[in-house]
Amino acid sequence: MQIKGDAKLLRIFIGESDKSHSIPVYEKIVLEARKSGLAGATVFKGIMGFGGSSRIHTAKILRLSEDMPLIIEIVDEIDKIEKFMPELDKIFEKANCGGLITIEKADVIKYVSQKK
Amino acid sequence: MQIKGDAKLLRIFIGESDKSHSIPVYEKIVLEARKSGLAGATVFKGIMGFGGSSRIHTAKILRLSEDMPLIIEIVDEIDKIEKFMPELDKIFEKANCGGLITIEKADVIKYVSQKK
Amino acid sequence: MQIKGDAKLLRIFIGESDKSHSIPVYEKIVLEARKSGLAGATVFKGIMGFGGSSRIHTAKILRLSEDMPLIIEIVDEIDKIEKFMPELDKIFEKANCGGLITIEKADVIKYVSQKK
Repeated sequence: MQIKGDAKLLRIFIGESDKSHSIPVYEKIVLEARKSGLAGATVFKGIMGFGGSSRIHTAKILRLSEDMPLIIEIVDEIDKIEKFMPELDKIFEKANCGGLITIEKADVIKYVSQKK
Repeated sequence: MQIKGDAKLLRIFIGESDKSHSIPVYEKIVLEARKSGLAGATVFKGIMGFGGSSRIHTAKILRLSEDMPLIIEIVDEIDKIEKFMPELDKIFEKANCGGLITIEKADVIKYVSQKK
Repeated sequence: MQIKGDAKLLRIFIGESDKSHSIPVYEKIVLEARKSGLAGATVFKGIMGFGGSSRIHTAKILRLSEDMPLIIEIVDEIDKIEKFMPELDKIFEKANCGGLITIEKADVIKYVSQKK
């Protein structure tokens, strides 16, 4: 597997408790990313935060420990990222959850497939 | 709430133990971000790191478990981020703590307010 | 210490269990970053993910709790980041592990050395 120098960083901000048919949305996204042949995906869990619902449901803004904000990070070539977007859209539609998806430019300096 | 395509990612690197009048600085920043109507803020906790004091106080460089490095991430339109900066400055001045604030370009692909 | 406005964000994606002579690679990178006089380094631990080995060893894609994906983040001036790259290369060569290294542009808005 190779990533060329001109790549993109896809970042998905969602909630830990967002589910689609009882499966966490973040798990669905990681599994779909693997299925789509993307170079990698990593999920990070926040310790505090608020999201899109802040203006509507103020009581839920500061989330409890089982509903922490998450970021999923995926780095790959722009073509692969773009191909993945409709799959991501489908997951969000089915889950009917909120979320923020951003894309940033990232130069890939080195990419070594893990040997083990 | 809407974020247009051309947004910014504000990232604030501070320490978990940085406090302002006994309240953690990261809590102050998240609460202020919410008050300022920003689209969201998320705090991530590192497992190891060193910061600005590395050259001066070498013994404290590798922080213990209650003083881990944190990143606060805020994505919103450039106007809202810029409006927030003076508030952030005030928090840092009152806390008299160190920190690194960076801004990156981020294209917002999708933004869905959470329904719950 | 000063970081000028035009800086770079170096991000290193590796595995928690990647070791070089029984020392975790992420520890080596943080210590080397400090030795090289970089402004700071922070390690974040993911809760789920897959990396470069996904196509080869499918059974190991979703890693267990002691081999979680990590990101190391380093912000500094481009010159210092570039000087650090050969050191980083050496660490990866010795460890013989996989990994992804990206560089992004980041504007440093504020940088205050920690006083304590």
